[in-house]
Amino acid sequence: MAKLIKKRSKKSGLPPGSLVHIGERKVETPKISIIDYNETQFQEKATQAIEECFIFKDKPTVTWTNIVGLHQTEILEKLGDCYGFHPLVLEDILNTDQRPKMEDYGDYVYIVLRSLEYNHQKEEIESDQISIILGQNFVFSFQEKEGDTFDPIRERIRTGKGRIRKIGADYLAYALLDSIVDNYFIILEKLGERIELLEEQLVTRPTPETLQTIHDLKKEMIFLRRAVWPLREVVGSLERGESSLIQASTRIYLRDLYDHTIQVIDNIETFRDMISGILDIYLSSVSNRLNAVMKVLTIIATIFMPLTFLAGIYGMNFKYMPELEWRWGYPFIWLVMIGIGIFMRVYFKKRKWL
Amino acid sequence: MAKLIKKRSKKSGLPPGSLVHIGERKVETPKISIIDYNETQFQEKATQAIEECFIFKDKPTVTWTNIVGLHQTEILEKLGDCYGFHPLVLEDILNTDQRPKMEDYGDYVYIVLRSLEYNHQKEEIESDQISIILGQNFVFSFQEKEGDTFDPIRERIRTGKGRIRKIGADYLAYALLDSIVDNYFIILEKLGERIELLEEQLVTRPTPETLQTIHDLKKEMIFLRRAVWPLREVVGSLERGESSLIQASTRIYLRDLYDHTIQVIDNIETFRDMISGILDIYLSSVSNRLNAVMKVLTIIATIFMPLTFLAGIYGMNFKYMPELEWRWGYPFIWLVMIGIGIFMRVYFKKRKWL
Amino acid sequence: MAKLIKKRSKKSGLPPGSLVHIGERKVETPKISIIDYNETQFQEKATQAIEECFIFKDKPTVTWTNIVGLHQTEILEKLGDCYGFHPLVLEDILNTDQRPKMEDYGDYVYIVLRSLEYNHQKEEIESDQISIILGQNFVFSFQEKEGDTFDPIRERIRTGKGRIRKIGADYLAYALLDSIVDNYFIILEKLGERIELLEEQLVTRPTPETLQTIHDLKKEMIFLRRAVWPLREVVGSLERGESSLIQASTRIYLRDLYDHTIQVIDNIETFRDMISGILDIYLSSVSNRLNAVMKVLTIIATIFMPLTFLAGIYGMNFKYMPELEWRWGYPFIWLVMIGIGIFMRVYFKKRKWL
Amino acid sequence: MAKLIKKRSKKSGLPPGSLVHIGERKVETPKISIIDYNETQFQEKATQAIEECFIFKDKPTVTWTNIVGLHQTEILEKLGDCYGFHPLVLEDILNTDQRPKMEDYGDYVYIVLRSLEYNHQKEEIESDQISIILGQNFVFSFQEKEGDTFDPIRERIRTGKGRIRKIGADYLAYALLDSIVDNYFIILEKLGERIELLEEQLVTRPTPETLQTIHDLKKEMIFLRRAVWPLREVVGSLERGESSLIQASTRIYLRDLYDHTIQVIDNIETFRDMISGILDIYLSSVSNRLNAVMKVLTIIATIFMPLTFLAGIYGMNFKYMPELEWRWGYPFIWLVMIGIGIFMRVYFKKRKWL
Amino acid sequence: MAKLIKKRSKKSGLPPGSLVHIGERKVETPKISIIDYNETQFQEKATQAIEECFIFKDKPTVTWTNIVGLHQTEILEKLGDCYGFHPLVLEDILNTDQRPKMEDYGDYVYIVLRSLEYNHQKEEIESDQISIILGQNFVFSFQEKEGDTFDPIRERIRTGKGRIRKIGADYLAYALLDSIVDNYFIILEKLGERIELLEEQLVTRPTPETLQTIHDLKKEMIFLRRAVWPLREVVGSLERGESSLIQASTRIYLRDLYDHTIQVIDNIETFRDMISGILDIYLSSVSNRLNAVMKVLTIIATIFMPLTFLAGIYGMNFKYMPELEWRWGYPFIWLVMIGIGIFMRVYFKKRKWL
Repeated sequence: MAKLIKKRSKKSGLPPGSLVHIGERKVETPKISIIDYNETQFQEKATQAIEECFIFKDKPTVTWTNIVGLHQTEILEKLGDCYGFHPLVLEDILNTDQRPKMEDYGDYVYIVLRSLEYNHQKEEIESDQISIILGQNFVFSFQEKEGDTFDPIRERIRTGKGRIRKIGADYLAYALLDSIVDNYFIILEKLGERIELLEEQLVTRPTPETLQTIHDLKKEMIFLRRAVWPLREVVGSLERGESSLIQASTRIYLRDLYDHTIQVIDNIETFRDMISGILDIYLSSVSNRLNAVMKVLTIIATIFMPLTFLAGIYGMNFKYMPELEWRWGYPFIWLVMIGIGIFMRVYFKKRKWL
Repeated sequence: MAKLIKKRSKKSGLPPGSLVHIGERKVETPKISIIDYNETQFQEKATQAIEECFIFKDKPTVTWTNIVGLHQTEILEKLGDCYGFHPLVLEDILNTDQRPKMEDYGDYVYIVLRSLEYNHQKEEIESDQISIILGQNFVFSFQEKEGDTFDPIRERIRTGKGRIRKIGADYLAYALLDSIVDNYFIILEKLGERIELLEEQLVTRPTPETLQTIHDLKKEMIFLRRAVWPLREVVGSLERGESSLIQASTRIYLRDLYDHTIQVIDNIETFRDMISGILDIYLSSVSNRLNAVMKVLTIIATIFMPLTFLAGIYGMNFKYMPELEWRWGYPFIWLVMIGIGIFMRVYFKKRKWL
Repeated sequence: MAKLIKKRSKKSGLPPGSLVHIGERKVETPKISIIDYNETQFQEKATQAIEECFIFKDKPTVTWTNIVGLHQTEILEKLGDCYGFHPLVLEDILNTDQRPKMEDYGDYVYIVLRSLEYNHQKEEIESDQISIILGQNFVFSFQEKEGDTFDPIRERIRTGKGRIRKIGADYLAYALLDSIVDNYFIILEKLGERIELLEEQLVTRPTPETLQTIHDLKKEMIFLRRAVWPLREVVGSLERGESSLIQASTRIYLRDLYDHTIQVIDNIETFRDMISGILDIYLSSVSNRLNAVMKVLTIIATIFMPLTFLAGIYGMNFKYMPELEWRWGYPFIWLVMIGIGIFMRVYFKKRKWL
Repeated sequence: MAKLIKKRSKKSGLPPGSLVHIGERKVETPKISIIDYNETQFQEKATQAIEECFIFKDKPTVTWTNIVGLHQTEILEKLGDCYGFHPLVLEDILNTDQRPKMEDYGDYVYIVLRSLEYNHQKEEIESDQISIILGQNFVFSFQEKEGDTFDPIRERIRTGKGRIRKIGADYLAYALLDSIVDNYFIILEKLGERIELLEEQLVTRPTPETLQTIHDLKKEMIFLRRAVWPLREVVGSLERGESSLIQASTRIYLRDLYDHTIQVIDNIETFRDMISGILDIYLSSVSNRLNAVMKVLTIIATIFMPLTFLAGIYGMNFKYMPELEWRWGYPFIWLVMIGIGIFMRVYFKKRKWL
Repeated sequence: MAKLIKKRSKKSGLPPGSLVHIGERKVETPKISIIDYNETQFQEKATQAIEECFIFKDKPTVTWTNIVGLHQTEILEKLGDCYGFHPLVLEDILNTDQRPKMEDYGDYVYIVLRSLEYNHQKEEIESDQISIILGQNFVFSFQEKEGDTFDPIRERIRTGKGRIRKIGADYLAYALLDSIVDNYFIILEKLGERIELLEEQLVTRPTPETLQTIHDLKKEMIFLRRAVWPLREVVGSLERGESSLIQASTRIYLRDLYDHTIQVIDNIETFRDMISGILDIYLSSVSNRLNAVMKVLTIIATIFMPLTFLAGIYGMNFKYMPELEWRWGYPFIWLVMIGIGIFMRVYFKKRKWL
């Protein structure tokens, strides 16, 4: 789960609105894909020159421009000039350390959130910043690296399946958000499986590695929470219809999306509760095992110390030790020792140590 | 208490409103039961064809259709077409992983919540999703599997006992909710008994299994909480009369239901507090027992180590050890040893270790 | 502190408003006492027939009817019929597991809360449900068992002392609430004393029983909290004058009562904080004592193990051990051993273990 | 820090408004001091008869009457009669267990709060209840015992320094509150020093007494919090101008006072965080020391147990033990033992135990 | 991180508005720098006489006066006289223990916050109080000591780069706040690095010093939180446009600043969560190591105690011990001992202790 905090310091001192890419460079060259459609028409284009999307600016059709890779700041500069986006919006798109938020600039709405994917090789969650600008008849989406999150939406637009071609840009923006939130559930499934595995392990055989796993899960929960909690407010304010760009019919879908977000948060909180419960149990079981170990030691010591002492007594070299001369001294001492052993055993039984 | 999270991933990528059943298939074939009544008339029917309920659609009588089993999505499709339910409502009914919520669609209100039952064989709580659609003169209820929760209501309608036949569909919906919440109290009673048992165990003889029981109870509390907390808001918004489908006279009953929900939540929080108190006490008693064990070990070692040392001294084979030659050397050494033993005992008494 | 949760299950399945007594039967036969008064007149009556109070219904004087014992549900049925109380109110009075609440039914206000008394024999807090119905010129109060909480009020009415005879039924209801809340302070005093005792014990000599006392106090705090927290809202909404039955002049007294409630809550929270502090200290002192015990063990073992080893060496039976033949071998080995002992002591001093 | 809770029980059963002094008697005889002033005039008087202040009642000058000692309830009775204060106000003044609060009675405002002083002899915080009644042209202040908190204000009035003589009674009330809150900072400084001392101790040498100090500080924090948190609301509602007795120009000073109150609360919360951090560290360091002790024990036991065993072997008296006869048996066994010792040392080094 | 609380006591008893410097004296002589500009003109001046800035008072250009060093209270007195600032504002500037706050006095807005810098030599965070007074055409900024935080802004004004020369004094105030908040991110980066280092250490080799580091980080978090949390409200109320001195176009920048503040808070909370997670893991690993140590001890003791006992038996000097005479007694006892050793090993393996 990457770095705790990104190198924001390289921007310190620059005036606000300066376009500097903060974050890793995750793709070699930026890729731009343009999809323009309405209920009857459909056009798709892949390019590297942002200028190609400017011709769609004044057409009434819905234009969706997806930009992958953020390190070439010129692309954003040109885009900002052409569409009149506020410099602070462009700055926020480039700064890949944003907290999910939604800003209404009147003509357009800027939404930023995090897309999460589970990397099965590295066994960790990967997080990407996704920015969306929604206007009257356009949607711009910005990704740090290529992912397949948006593929089903592209397919639905191509085939004209569902409502997507009939309703405007606001529904497209909703569909993008929805596909990102849907991915969260896959992450939650993965984490849920890991937590269940952990619980089983706890019962069968806890090891010091269990502790590390608990810590890792806890940390992932912290990051997940941070990515999802603010989203609730973002979707909530979209749903409450604070922007005139969102039609009433889309609002019902946003309410559904809001419910999903709440459900994700609910699951995260449940997971947190469970992990902290697991940690408690782990700690207690460590104490219990210490107790068990100490009991073994105490039993052994309590039995053999007196016996060894007795053997020591009759190992002394005093000249006058009458017992040593006795005919049955040796068997008798064995009987005494066995008696002590049996007594100890009974005593431990009574104390429920055995 | 089932899985942490259900396989929602199989829906990922589908457009919103796609009808896919998420959850286990708990019955073989869906069962549909229709009850149609007003103050004077009463009609009851069991069928497997959802079409049979469509004839009641425009009749002024109240029609309650109960559908058990959700895996045949065609039933919902047909129902949605006939009554004009929003696709998102149908989707939510099929997705058995919902958080309790209430959605007002103007013509009808959609309510989803969880019904809880205590399975005495498995000694665990079983949870079912119940969806209710309340319209002007109809109520649809959807269950995952058959249960006897609604039986008393059916009986009351049949016999015409109580207010139920005199008031409209909103009172029926209230009665359904009320019977579900009433069941929560039975669950709470069961859990209360288990907590009291646990407390007694803690006093008499705590074992490592106690820990597992605490963990299980804690986990059940987490799930219970998750099922009940959101219900408060659901019933609250029904009571505040945000929907025109709820009559004023029913509102007083909803206030009562709201109180019950609060009481359930109150009990859950009390239980949580008690369980966390029990865990604290358990951990402390483990520490206390460790202390007790260590004291025994220390007492034994502190008495016998010096004595064994002394015996070792007089077991040495030095040629010139005058004590060994003494006539009363051996009895004298015994006296010394007994003296050390008594001194140690007094010392431990003073330190309050014995 | 009685049961965690009362047997509500016997009501499950019954229609709302069914009159079933939930709780223990604390008195043999219900007792009804009627006091009717205004500034000039005063009349007092003790009966077992609820009908006797109906004659006061339309008189302008204030009538206070106190009913002790709830298991005869007919009494409530008749009362409900005569005064037109809502069935849910009657149900709530009988269900002695209520959360404190206040419900305004227009003509009358229903208040339910818990009265607490300290049972000095059993050394535990006893809790009773008290229901109060306040109307224009009447107050009904319902108790589970006889108590002396209301006696001073009766006395004040009889002697005409204070404002109580001059102001209406609302002031009487306030006086009843005030006397119940006053009792809470006595409970708090008792608990405060026990906490102070516990703290002293902690300093002088903590025992495993201390742990049980902490747990018991914690549990009593949970129950107390549950009884008092909701009361704040009850008194608060009475004071804010949401009901027209409360006159402005009484409101100033309700504000005072509200302050007392807050103070009770404040004290409960302080006690909770203190008890959790005491638990922390107890746990730490257990650890500290374990440390002390282990140090003794380690000191003993570290001194005597090397010495016993040395003694063991010269107890070996090798044929050629030159030291054994030395004239001063034995005194010399004693010197070595004493030297080791002194060195160890110095070493432990330096490590601050002694 | 005195008692947890004061003997309120002696008032239980009395009608509200009964004048009973609850708390300790801290002075022998009550002292009354009267200061009457406006911009040009100034008059000061010390008396024991409350009647002397009544002559100032109708004069337009500001009259400040300070009453020290509350056990003579007649003083308050007479005062209440003359100025028409509500009996509940007089009751609250006498009950020295009040939570800070502000009550607006229209003609006058009643404010109650706690003054804190650090007693350097007893090394504890002493707490006094201060009541203030602010009217159009008078301020009454009630103290449990004499203190020097108000001396600088008296001096400022006498010399006419600052704004105090120019503005009305509301500014005087503000000045009194301000001087009390200023004292809180001195308490905080003291506590801050003790916390810093505690932290140093923790690093150099923690002892079991450290635990007691932490507990004491924690308890003082609880009491401090309880005295200061409600004050925030008191000053806040004064500042928001809810009473017409407060002039706009005074409000700016009350805002400043509000900031100070927030700052005190802020500091208290910081201290609480720090103390709980210190407790964590203390507990961990106890565990760490236990670990260190156990390592020493284990090292000693692990080295000497095998060696003692070996010595024991060659102390056996078997007739046929060839090693015993060897010429170099004894030196050889020494070599073996030294070898085992060195091996153990290396092993422990590798495990980083040494 | 300096003192917990500053010596405020030296002001106690003085009337409000008294100008006393509370805090350390961090510079020798105060330095005053004046920058006066509008879109076309620019003038810069460094002086020690505050009077030099008074000539700019009535000019329409924006005047930024930066004052470093606060111990010469005459400067503030003169400034207050000339510009008519409220004495409480001047008092707050001098009291360097302020909580961040914003106060609107109509003609001017007073903002106080903390600037944080990481001192690489001392490896600690240094904190300075910065006060800003924003008027129609002037900004006063007050620093405790010289820093380079404002240098880039000075440079931007000099070169006329960015919007800064075109917009009024409100944008300048925003720019100052922005540069301070930007610095917080550098602090967060530093802390983030230290937390990551700590985590690695935890995995590789935790030492008792780790505990001290955790405690230090925790403490720094407490201080950071205290400096940043209130800032949120400050910027929030500036952004909500509660003062008429802030133009609408600046508000969009303040919204951005607000987002940054939230992000800083978000990071601090994440860090806190992580540090508390690290502490949990540290404590658990201490317990785990104790377990490991105890197991070694128990294994050694459990193997060698019975063996030493056996050796002791045959070291006894009884006259009649038949085994001692046996030809193969000695080899046989060795076999028995090796057998016991092997059995113990197998037993421990089965218990998973090895």
